Amino acid sequence: MHRRVGVWLFGARGSVATTTVAGAAALAHGAPPAGVVTEQPAFAGAGLTPIDRLVFGGHDPSETPLSKQVERLVAGGVLPPGLDGLIAAELAETERNLVVLPVADTQDELVRRMAEDIRAFRLRNDLEHVVAINVASTEPPANVGYANLAELREALKASRVRSGQASREVSGQAGPQGSGGAGPEGSGGAGPEGSGGALPASSLAALAAFEAGAAYVDFTPSTSIRPQVVRDWAVERGLPYGGQDAKTGETLVKSVLAPMFTARALPVHAWSGTNLLGGGDGATLADPRAAESKSVSKERVLTELLGGEVPGEVHIDYVDPLGDWKTAWDHVMFSGFLGVRMTLQFTWQGCDSALAAPLVLDLARLSALALERGHVGAMPFLGFYFKDPIESTEHALTRQYDELVRWVQEC
Amino acid sequence: MHRRVGVWLFGARGSVATTTVAGAAALAHGAPPAGVVTEQPAFAGAGLTPIDRLVFGGHDPSETPLSKQVERLVAGGVLPPGLDGLIAAELAETERNLVVLPVADTQDELVRRMAEDIRAFRLRNDLEHVVAINVASTEPPANVGYANLAELREALKASRVRSGQASREVSGQAGPQGSGGAGPEGSGGAGPEGSGGALPASSLAALAAFEAGAAYVDFTPSTSIRPQVVRDWAVERGLPYGGQDAKTGETLVKSVLAPMFTARALPVHAWSGTNLLGGGDGATLADPRAAESKSVSKERVLTELLGGEVPGEVHIDYVDPLGDWKTAWDHVMFSGFLGVRMTLQFTWQGCDSALAAPLVLDLARLSALALERGHVGAMPFLGFYFKDPIESTEHALTRQYDELVRWVQEC
Amino acid sequence: MHRRVGVWLFGARGSVATTTVAGAAALAHGAPPAGVVTEQPAFAGAGLTPIDRLVFGGHDPSETPLSKQVERLVAGGVLPPGLDGLIAAELAETERNLVVLPVADTQDELVRRMAEDIRAFRLRNDLEHVVAINVASTEPPANVGYANLAELREALKASRVRSGQASREVSGQAGPQGSGGAGPEGSGGAGPEGSGGALPASSLAALAAFEAGAAYVDFTPSTSIRPQVVRDWAVERGLPYGGQDAKTGETLVKSVLAPMFTARALPVHAWSGTNLLGGGDGATLADPRAAESKSVSKERVLTELLGGEVPGEVHIDYVDPLGDWKTAWDHVMFSGFLGVRMTLQFTWQGCDSALAAPLVLDLARLSALALERGHVGAMPFLGFYFKDPIESTEHALTRQYDELVRWVQEC
Amino acid sequence: MHRRVGVWLFGARGSVATTTVAGAAALAHGAPPAGVVTEQPAFAGAGLTPIDRLVFGGHDPSETPLSKQVERLVAGGVLPPGLDGLIAAELAETERNLVVLPVADTQDELVRRMAEDIRAFRLRNDLEHVVAINVASTEPPANVGYANLAELREALKASRVRSGQASREVSGQAGPQGSGGAGPEGSGGAGPEGSGGALPASSLAALAAFEAGAAYVDFTPSTSIRPQVVRDWAVERGLPYGGQDAKTGETLVKSVLAPMFTARALPVHAWSGTNLLGGGDGATLADPRAAESKSVSKERVLTELLGGEVPGEVHIDYVDPLGDWKTAWDHVMFSGFLGVRMTLQFTWQGCDSALAAPLVLDLARLSALALERGHVGAMPFLGFYFKDPIESTEHALTRQYDELVRWVQEC
Ligand SMILES: NC(=O)c1ccc[n+]([C@@H]2O[C@H](COP(=O)([O-])OP(=O)(O)OC[C@H]3O[C@@H](n4cnc5c(N)ncnc54)[C@H](O)[C@@H]3O)[C@@H](O)[C@H]2O)c1
Ligand SMILES: NC(=O)c1ccc[n+]([C@@H]2O[C@H](COP(=O)([O-])OP(=O)(O)OC[C@H]3O[C@@H](n4cnc5c(N)ncnc54)[C@H](O)[C@@H]3O)[C@@H](O)[C@H]2O)c1
Ligand SMILES: NC(=O)c1ccc[n+]([C@@H]2O[C@H](COP(=O)([O-])OP(=O)(O)OC[C@H]3O[C@@H](n4cnc5c(N)ncnc54)[C@H](O)[C@@H]3O)[C@@H](O)[C@H]2O)c1
Ligand SMILES: NC(=O)c1ccc[n+]([C@@H]2O[C@H](COP(=O)([O-])OP(=O)(O)OC[C@H]3O[C@@H](n4cnc5c(N)ncnc54)[C@H](O)[C@@H]3O)[C@@H](O)[C@H]2O)c1
Ligand code: NA
Ligand code: NA
Repeated sequence: MHRRVGVWLFGARGSVATTTVAGAAALAHGAPPAGVVTEQPAFAGAGLTPIDRLVFGGHDPSETPLSKQVERLVAGGVLPPGLDGLIAAELAETERNLVVLPVADTQDELVRRMAEDIRAFRLRNDLEHVVAINVASTEPPANVGYANLAELREALKASRVRSGQASREVSGQAGPQGSGGAGPEGSGGAGPEGSGGALPASSLAALAAFEAGAAYVDFTPSTSIRPQVVRDWAVERGLPYGGQDAKTGETLVKSVLAPMFTARALPVHAWSGTNLLGGGDGATLADPRAAESKSVSKERVLTELLGGEVPGEVHIDYVDPLGDWKTAWDHVMFSGFLGVRMTLQFTWQGCDSALAAPLVLDLARLSALALERGHVGAMPFLGFYFKDPIESTEHALTRQYDELVRWVQEC
Repeated sequence: MHRRVGVWLFGARGSVATTTVAGAAALAHGAPPAGVVTEQPAFAGAGLTPIDRLVFGGHDPSETPLSKQVERLVAGGVLPPGLDGLIAAELAETERNLVVLPVADTQDELVRRMAEDIRAFRLRNDLEHVVAINVASTEPPANVGYANLAELREALKASRVRSGQASREVSGQAGPQGSGGAGPEGSGGAGPEGSGGALPASSLAALAAFEAGAAYVDFTPSTSIRPQVVRDWAVERGLPYGGQDAKTGETLVKSVLAPMFTARALPVHAWSGTNLLGGGDGATLADPRAAESKSVSKERVLTELLGGEVPGEVHIDYVDPLGDWKTAWDHVMFSGFLGVRMTLQFTWQGCDSALAAPLVLDLARLSALALERGHVGAMPFLGFYFKDPIESTEHALTRQYDELVRWVQEC
Repeated sequence: MHRRVGVWLFGARGSVATTTVAGAAALAHGAPPAGVVTEQPAFAGAGLTPIDRLVFGGHDPSETPLSKQVERLVAGGVLPPGLDGLIAAELAETERNLVVLPVADTQDELVRRMAEDIRAFRLRNDLEHVVAINVASTEPPANVGYANLAELREALKASRVRSGQASREVSGQAGPQGSGGAGPEGSGGAGPEGSGGALPASSLAALAAFEAGAAYVDFTPSTSIRPQVVRDWAVERGLPYGGQDAKTGETLVKSVLAPMFTARALPVHAWSGTNLLGGGDGATLADPRAAESKSVSKERVLTELLGGEVPGEVHIDYVDPLGDWKTAWDHVMFSGFLGVRMTLQFTWQGCDSALAAPLVLDLARLSALALERGHVGAMPFLGFYFKDPIESTEHALTRQYDELVRWVQEC
Repeated sequence: MHRRVGVWLFGARGSVATTTVAGAAALAHGAPPAGVVTEQPAFAGAGLTPIDRLVFGGHDPSETPLSKQVERLVAGGVLPPGLDGLIAAELAETERNLVVLPVADTQDELVRRMAEDIRAFRLRNDLEHVVAINVASTEPPANVGYANLAELREALKASRVRSGQASREVSGQAGPQGSGGAGPEGSGGAGPEGSGGALPASSLAALAAFEAGAAYVDFTPSTSIRPQVVRDWAVERGLPYGGQDAKTGETLVKSVLAPMFTARALPVHAWSGTNLLGGGDGATLADPRAAESKSVSKERVLTELLGGEVPGEVHIDYVDPLGDWKTAWDHVMFSGFLGVRMTLQFTWQGCDSALAAPLVLDLARLSALALERGHVGAMPFLGFYFKDPIESTEHALTRQYDELVRWVQEC
């Protein structure tokens, strides 16, 4: 029988996290696993942990009860009516595993405290493996430039944290940029609003995961595992990491349409997109600095799939009344034989969290399998799930899918 | 140096054929090969015949001069302004290779006469190989039920042809249905308008190609190589065949979107489509019987890609003022985690002939390569080009592309 | 203080009727009157009956309890969650006023029995006026050709009704066509084929309303008040009538877009539309004969607004998973100066019953005002609400609105 | 017989101007007057100047020959192929009436020189009336705050102009802001920052028109007649003015859709729009400061039609390969009865200049009629043509149309 696997969620009270926890409980009550890729026959023989053996925990600065979040998602049509009552017991169980972000004097200490929380979760629940997944609010881009692990360790020790800062700060420009030196001492901050951290919160979360012996997957476009030193840390600890920025909407569609134009040798002249979204994620992205992280990761897909930069802007508009729903409109101008101009437009109307949650379950199961197999370092075979797949340049969805299945079936 | 390859077009004065001939000439004058898949680097080492070594000829009941058709396509924005002047010499050369459909007493004789036309074309132009491609008007579906080649030969001899009939008739229900017997003798016709043919025109064209030692590719959804006996004929002659019904618009997009839903385990509840088109093809499809052939071949894609029938109608509307342009709107209703309903819509605005013509060039070059390699029978590796790929059930475009490249590179 | 007004609904257990009844109750509990046109300031001084003074009753062959229908509409997202509990008392009150269609030997008797039901409703509830509104399932078109009231009365007496027939039948070709003679004697009833009824159910409903001294408004495209004799009957009784076929979706949008093209002198070359809908109305319209009534009434708008027939088909597709939701896509091809071709497309995603119900409230209040004012005959000033406004050729929405406001304010 | 009317175009070599001149010539050669509103029957009896009696002239800093511009528009599909040859004589005639912007030391002198150009045009061509229409590049917004004509005159005299400056400058912040004082003395010119001009170019153009006894209509969203002093100047001279910012695309559609929601009492929760456009106008609007003028004028429509601010952004993206074509996508979120959320989306694909040019002809004819009738001051009855109708708050297209027709027919 399968031993239990822990899923540690950074951002554990957000929409994606709540939908994941509630959805796993709903599956246990017999809901069909729509959207869970790893429930398909191609994944059957690989010994993946059953979903009902996953145990959830996590960090979040917010203290809104999970049950309140579930109610909100039911009212918004993300979760089915009546679900809140049905899964009350499971929610209460997960609630006991949720922790506010610890307080610390330095980022070094913060990482250690966060790692302790994760280890405690593992012990208390008698878990075979733990997979940490970042589903926290998107941060603005940050430049991190430590030359090696030693420098990073120094900087973490030197960086003082204001009370509660790590949780709420949205730090850019952390650490010395390409210089290899430590962050500006005593400056009290390197980020736009004077953030003094050596690393932004998402990267600290990754380090905490590694310190606790957990795999780490980034569902967001935040800095987290982008810096080479953070990846080195994982390798030093012998752990796998993956990401970034789950593709669940406009970019998912792009990742199948762009290869169509390429395969047919049809030149694309302009690709424009407008994304309308509400919800917590929308509110975060209404901040142009956070939106920048998102846009950058969105753009990589097209540039790499079409073999070069293509004109056209991508707008991300916060439209509060849309709630957890997202509408994307894309307009593609291309030409055929002898230059005739043609157009493809699409409109995607999706519920973001309902698309994301089953993928969180997939990523937990697949990363647990990677831990099981002793995989160390990047997991490029998870590229299927991401807008900005780490250590991979393949963006065509079907090829990414085939690559994932090959990896799962390979042993 | 490459010897020349002949491209015999059934329907040689139609929009697709004319755009193909004019386009090949334009390329020779320096136009970039947009839309020609086989000009991509992946195809470079395979020794494909250069486009300027292709020589065009063909059958068509119509006698409108090619140059008139080119003028019409320039006026309609399919071909660039001024092209008619530029390529007058090339058009005149092709014009000399075009033949009206021959007159015959029986279908057997008709096939022989058509084959003679193709052989004469080969001799006159000193061609190494000839590839015949059917780009004639779509026929209504026909049931053909001969048990073996002998029976078919009998039926062809027995079937009387009215003067000029083969060319214009749009015959359904040809031959005995599933009975194995010959067509009703002396009945004077088995088709809706009393067609007495053993086979519909597209199948006769295939036989003529095989009799002339040519490969045969069907760009249309007509009967042609659907009957097993017609394929047997090709194999008996040691020749390759491929098809059917080029995917250039709505279905092309479907062939990348449907695999997206499947890969992500997102159940599709309904897929509805409306196609608006003008032009000669649109006028033909305004006849519900011809449209039936098209719809059947369009539907296979979704059913096979989504693993079952999905509700939703596909409309094909003739909208005369659209000319050679096609607009398709598709509405896909799917659900995600826990049954949340979502929607994807797309609108495709394409110029059909400009999308089709470069594929005709591809198919000519690839089929010549198959002849060169001595390939006999079905060419499933051409599935990338077709809505209803013969002897293949793979419809996902990226996988079809990869399969094609593998075949091209394999020797 | 306002005395109470009765609203008699033919089709009282359908989606539109149920949403109307439930919505009126919700307004009484404080819901804002979104979509109720007559709650706008322009209508304030006219002395319209307050919505909480409307009392509902009606006929329906179905016996499904209203509360079950409300539950279904809550589950389908048409009515807000929790509404069923809130308005239980109001539903029970309306339930007491609902009657199955009476049984009768002849259509003449049927009309009298139905009229008795309406009169009983008025007495029991002490109502000042009664307005009857037809929201029953759409019937197929029927030809009715009586020369005058006397002939019609003869025919009604002669027409025998099978038990329960009037309720369920969907009658075409009722009565003598243009001949003035009575319906085929002794034929034993009106069914889709060989219907022996003098009139289809919707026209009988109109007569019953008039016999009971009620105004009659047709929300559907059925025959009802189309025949001149039925209108004569209303005039003889000194009563107003209005209709037909409420415009709530695609046609509503057409009624503002078409005048835009006309006002700007932009020639429209083709207008194509596809309507996807589920629900009870969708299921009815899946029958091509019922859909015909709908299409005919939809087409009048464009033809009259654009000053002539415009090419382009209108499809109505039943897509069961859409439930009470409707999606319409329209594609308009027009040209500007010197013939340049341009395109306008729209996609409408609406909840039909939620758009229809507030209009039913409007029509009840406005018809009660007409009764109050002693208006006799057609109410063309209600054209704002209809695809096929009776005795009016104005289809431009803004003009219809201004006309309505003028009528309301005129006294 | 009608005497001739002059049409003086500021921006006479731009796309709109060129299409207007070429189009008027094409009409003389028999092209049908599609898009010309004043050719409709409702305008027949009013004695409007026939289009073939219009004579064109104008100012433009550019010196590209008109015939080159026509060629460019033919290549871009805005004008029909072959038109350049057909209308060579008419183009040459207009070319003789085109003038580069004069050089002057002060803005006062500049206005006088420009007025002289217009007067010369009138004399040379023996014109009964002259109508000046601004179709020059959109300027950024400017604040102009002169208390009265005397102050403005002072400021014009004091403002020094660099050689050629008036023509190319894109001046913001002209003149004292709300202070009533003169512009900064000796500043030596008006630039984007620290502009020393008393008025931006568009307002100078208006003054020049008035000095020459011409009516003035602003087709753009530039400052021009926005300042009260500029309007006072027109009134002092006894002349009519009108504008601003012609509605030809997205806003045109908004001006019929928004009244639909209002008339039906359907609350609009968010209205988002994305405009993709190329061409000279697109290049200008790629400058966010110029785009600001456009966005402001676009927004007035919705706010005034919906009776309040509605959330949602409007993007204007420059997409070079679109050429003179514009694509707009709008997404409207609204609700119906009891708060059910619904959506309307539209995609408009139009050729801007082909929509604009016939309106320029209309405005010339209608303004000439106003001159004829001795109308002085604002022409609010031209609101039908504008996004931001001067001295009018009516934005509903149908009502604007009816108002225009009433004015035309009134005498
Ligand atoms: N389809 C999708 O939903 C999708 C796709 C791709 C990426 N994402 C990303 O997933 C993330 C979560 O999206 P969401 O819709 O759940 O957003 P959300 O705003 O609902 O939730 C984010 C949660 O993160 C918490 N948080 C903030 N800072 C934190 C920190 N330093 N440590 C731990 N928790 C922190 C917040 O309190 C909040 O509870 C976003 O970054 C989003 O961009 C989502
Ligand atoms: N994108 C595309 O254009 C596309 C895609 C898939 C399939 N097709 C198919 O390609 C075919 C050609 O399309 P088109 O737009 O050129 O149509 P078209 O109507 O312009 O041309 C068809 C030509 O076939 C000729 N013809 C008719 N019967 C014939 C016969 N028995 N033998 C030889 N010629 C005959 C006609 O005279 C005409 O010249 C159609 O069947 C169409 O369905 C086209
Ligand atoms: N937006 C809209 O919803 C809209 C707009 C225009 C017109 N309509 C029309 O309104 C009508 C009602 O639509 P719906 O969605 O409520 O349909 P529905 O199918 O839910 O309800 C129709 C009801 O009519 C009843 N019925 C059938 N025959 C009857 C008869 N002879 N007498 C009395 N009742 C009878 C049925 O039992 C059913 O309860 C349809 O005709 C529809 O076309 C609706
Ligand atoms: N549908 C439409 O085309 C439409 C609708 C509304 C408003 N407009 C407005 O009409 C104007 C013209 O559009 P276009 O597409 O022709 O642009 P364009 O860029 O093609 O032409 C503008 C012309 O103005 C000239 N110009 C610049 N500054 C000038 C000055 N100070 N005096 C005189 N001429 C000057 C330029 O040299 C150029 O020739 C723009 O302001 C645009 O916003 C156009
Ligand atoms: Na793919
Ligand atoms: Na209107």
